[in-house]
Amino acid sequence: MRAIKLAILGATGAVGREMLRLLEEYRIPVSELRLLSGPNSAGKTILFQGIEQKVQQATDDCFLGIVSVLGASDAPVSRRFVPAIRRSGAVFIDNSSAFRMDPEVPLIVPEINGSDARDHHGVIANPNCSTIITLMAVAGIDRISPIRSMVVSTYQAVSGAGIRGQQELEQELAAYLQGRPPQPEVFPVPIAMNLIPWIGAEAENGYTDEEMKMQNEGRRILHRPELTVNCTCVRVPVMRSHSISVTLWTKDAVTLSEANAALAQFPGCHLMTEKARSWPTPLDTGGQDLVWIGRLREDRTHPNGLSLWCCGDQVRKGAAANALQILQCLENGL
Amino acid sequence: MRAIKLAILGATGAVGREMLRLLEEYRIPVSELRLLSGPNSAGKTILFQGIEQKVQQATDDCFLGIVSVLGASDAPVSRRFVPAIRRSGAVFIDNSSAFRMDPEVPLIVPEINGSDARDHHGVIANPNCSTIITLMAVAGIDRISPIRSMVVSTYQAVSGAGIRGQQELEQELAAYLQGRPPQPEVFPVPIAMNLIPWIGAEAENGYTDEEMKMQNEGRRILHRPELTVNCTCVRVPVMRSHSISVTLWTKDAVTLSEANAALAQFPGCHLMTEKARSWPTPLDTGGQDLVWIGRLREDRTHPNGLSLWCCGDQVRKGAAANALQILQCLENGL
Repeated sequence: MRAIKLAILGATGAVGREMLRLLEEYRIPVSELRLLSGPNSAGKTILFQGIEQKVQQATDDCFLGIVSVLGASDAPVSRRFVPAIRRSGAVFIDNSSAFRMDPEVPLIVPEINGSDARDHHGVIANPNCSTIITLMAVAGIDRISPIRSMVVSTYQAVSGAGIRGQQELEQELAAYLQGRPPQPEVFPVPIAMNLIPWIGAEAENGYTDEEMKMQNEGRRILHRPELTVNCTCVRVPVMRSHSISVTLWTKDAVTLSEANAALAQFPGCHLMTEKARSWPTPLDTGGQDLVWIGRLREDRTHPNGLSLWCCGDQVRKGAAANALQILQCLENGL
Repeated sequence: MRAIKLAILGATGAVGREMLRLLEEYRIPVSELRLLSGPNSAGKTILFQGIEQKVQQATDDCFLGIVSVLGASDAPVSRRFVPAIRRSGAVFIDNSSAFRMDPEVPLIVPEINGSDARDHHGVIANPNCSTIITLMAVAGIDRISPIRSMVVSTYQAVSGAGIRGQQELEQELAAYLQGRPPQPEVFPVPIAMNLIPWIGAEAENGYTDEEMKMQNEGRRILHRPELTVNCTCVRVPVMRSHSISVTLWTKDAVTLSEANAALAQFPGCHLMTEKARSWPTPLDTGGQDLVWIGRLREDRTHPNGLSLWCCGDQVRKGAAANALQILQCLENGL
């Protein structure tokens, strides 16, 4: 892979910092690196490859000469800077939700639909974190027979709310053990010793926008425009791996042994089938890119159904790792 | 209600102690109380109505003269003492799983099938905790049109593993905050900052016995022998309220407004419909008997489907409160 001129938009957040760690871990050759942020974080320094790098405030002219921009900000920031990134000729690999449903923008999980990235017009979208992890765990089954519908309940880590979400959980746990009342700021109610069955904003018919992503992004990534997904998103007091309980129904029946074989060889997945322990936990799966799958079994309600449980690091495969894998796809050829 | 001669078998555990608290809270008149335990807890004292009561070791002859025995032990203890309880003429209201699937033993949630308790032959079973809370939340819909199947994912508190489960969570959280490694004993892996998607023992086809209870006990309580339930049981780092994500399909379509009306008036339930916050959390629901229901909405995968989220105190309505309500039914007439 050639040495590349890179910018990270939103370099000081949880996902931006993970992208920096993964650039080192993956040994991606970087000839120039621009760390961009909003005005509040400009001037900070971040260690990269042993050298202190200064964070600069993002402006329209700071993308000149850059080959790829990794977006680790939120949707308004991505929308604000996309014209300047396009003008610079750089490819924008964006982790925000800004362009995910734009039909001109490929929405990519490399192991599933990496070749869709060929059709990019300067912008490639990184999917929602729970969507990536869930689809990684079911795509092998979808290749045997199309998935028609899924009922999904998530168990989402606080890292989905960034570094401040993680800090809030730790502060509330300390308060709990000391007998002090929790003081939620990031989340609407306490998350320590609790669950919050509401993530995002109301979208339609009682579902949140976070829940609708599973269906709407899933349709694009799997190329299944008719897919229906009933999703319940729940925040849990876990630091950084998301877990998902999935029941899915395929067009034709897929046997358990067919599904087992497909998931065992699906790239980026680790299927647990050991009798002694066939289930992964969030703690098993932190700090790595693999999506762990377990509890694969037949649905009891319909002959064409299967159920499984999966866990994956939200900051890595759910965000930063997937984005860097897209970059590698582009650089190495699709 | 007449003053009653009561025994509690397993008085020193989490459920036994909650039964004692609820006898006081409900002002159930007790003319005699025998607190029974295994040999290790015999000799302890427990405060009841301001008086220290001595715990005695359970033996076959300690049920003589007793009217009702509340069972708060595990299944082997219940099986061990049921012949002696029957001989004494007392009614045994048992919280263990020992007799729940015995066709001669009524399995009772008073708000749903209280009148089934009429047919008892000396033993009445208290259902599994997650099953009670889930069925409380869906029984109102089942009365409009029979529920044919459900896909259920649980979020179960550590209280389901007793006082020691609660202690282990607190110890592991303290270790986490101090940077020490967790030392799981009650649970197979750490539960602090983690999830354990496996509760109970393997039953059939990859489901655990805990998961099969939702279907098998649900069939008896709802009088729906054809009901199929696909359940995934997950332990979460929460102290004592269980939460459940449910999608259900009825024989005929039930409209959202019909379901809303039915659940709003179902006894023992609190339906949240406020626009500002339509979802309960475990912390909202601790220390009370109500099952809270929220996020009632249409399923996206099938026209006859509905989804909801519910939370209830595992030690109260999931165990001790339901047992005492059965006792009140018997004493007050069904």
